[in-house]
Amino acid sequence: MRQWRHYWCPGTGSLVVDVAFAWAGITPERVLIDTDKGEQQAPDFLAVNPAAQIPVVVLPSGTVLTETAAILLTIDEASAGAGLLPAAGSTARAVSLRWLMFLATNAYPAALRTYYSDRFTADGSEAAKAAVAEAAKRDSDRIFTLLAKEMVGPFLLGDTVTIVDVYAAMIAGWHEQARALPAFRTLYKTLQAHPVIGPAWRQHEGRPD
Amino acid sequence: MRQWRHYWCPGTGSLVVDVAFAWAGITPERVLIDTDKGEQQAPDFLAVNPAAQIPVVVLPSGTVLTETAAILLTIDEASAGAGLLPAAGSTARAVSLRWLMFLATNAYPAALRTYYSDRFTADGSEAAKAAVAEAAKRDSDRIFTLLAKEMVGPFLLGDTVTIVDVYAAMIAGWHEQARALPAFRTLYKTLQAHPVIGPAWRQHEGRPD
Repeated sequence: MRQWRHYWCPGTGSLVVDVAFAWAGITPERVLIDTDKGEQQAPDFLAVNPAAQIPVVVLPSGTVLTETAAILLTIDEASAGAGLLPAAGSTARAVSLRWLMFLATNAYPAALRTYYSDRFTADGSEAAKAAVAEAAKRDSDRIFTLLAKEMVGPFLLGDTVTIVDVYAAMIAGWHEQARALPAFRTLYKTLQAHPVIGPAWRQHEGRPD
Repeated sequence: MRQWRHYWCPGTGSLVVDVAFAWAGITPERVLIDTDKGEQQAPDFLAVNPAAQIPVVVLPSGTVLTETAAILLTIDEASAGAGLLPAAGSTARAVSLRWLMFLATNAYPAALRTYYSDRFTADGSEAAKAAVAEAAKRDSDRIFTLLAKEMVGPFLLGDTVTIVDVYAAMIAGWHEQARALPAFRTLYKTLQAHPVIGPAWRQHEGRPD
């Protein structure tokens, strides 16, 4: 059987994918796509993912998988028992899926609109881009305030950590006001102290453990 | 055991949720939230979903579930064997999850930016809103062109229909250029001819079957 492959870049959703692999006990081949150098637009990479987005995972079967949330669900299914998500069919799993999707469809797009505001208006002026970024930041504030209220603590589900907590902390890390919320400060510290998640997180960021 | 409940409104993601329930053989209690009248902002509904979004599903356990994709995954898990998605752990399932998430995180947000462009810029002028909508429509064109290329036909996976096809056809239906693509015209016609999906789709829209 061939190895899993992970096209990754620091500062993108590949952080949570690296943590998921470590948690599942899978060691993928890793291919760095430097988005600062625009390598996601290179023909070789576009042949893998025409949407020019990171992260991408290739299954041992050779099937290409994109979309962070889909990758997390697939790694969870491939490592049932590792506990990345609660067991299929449980109420806890439904709640986890709710927040995974809430983050993927609300928080992640709001972060993209903040950092790449030029893509979200046909008006190329600096003022237009700033107005898009301002609306996006306001959305992020609302989204993370809501999520902080829903967090049982220290994790979304209470005492049980899931990969959704890592995903939430990653996206919160991209937004200053979210990082400052007590619920997310506690979440970040608790995740960094976790024996598997902490080291995998720091290794992704190239920090000594 | 209590019944499932579905807070729904025509013209929203609740179409695919209604189809998923019919496909799974589940008959939920349905509560109409008329978004044209702003009922998603009523205190009673905000107590259910503080994000003020439709659709919402309440599980028989009383747990509130939001986010269309999370709802579809949960209905699939509650009705394993019905075939809304390929079996857990299969390559076909991973591919389905990829497109489910691609639609949820790219196509659905682009539709929101088209229809509610005022929410995506802090500049209240008509010109600013039009520039946001123009960028969103350009994104939708790109997203559905890419998806049409990936579609094996008549469904995303070839001959096997999944709930992701219904989700794709629903969002494509909100975008004129997507509706006009041959792959999506074929998809829509094939879904309407399906013995379970077709009637459920038309019933949601209040059309006689």
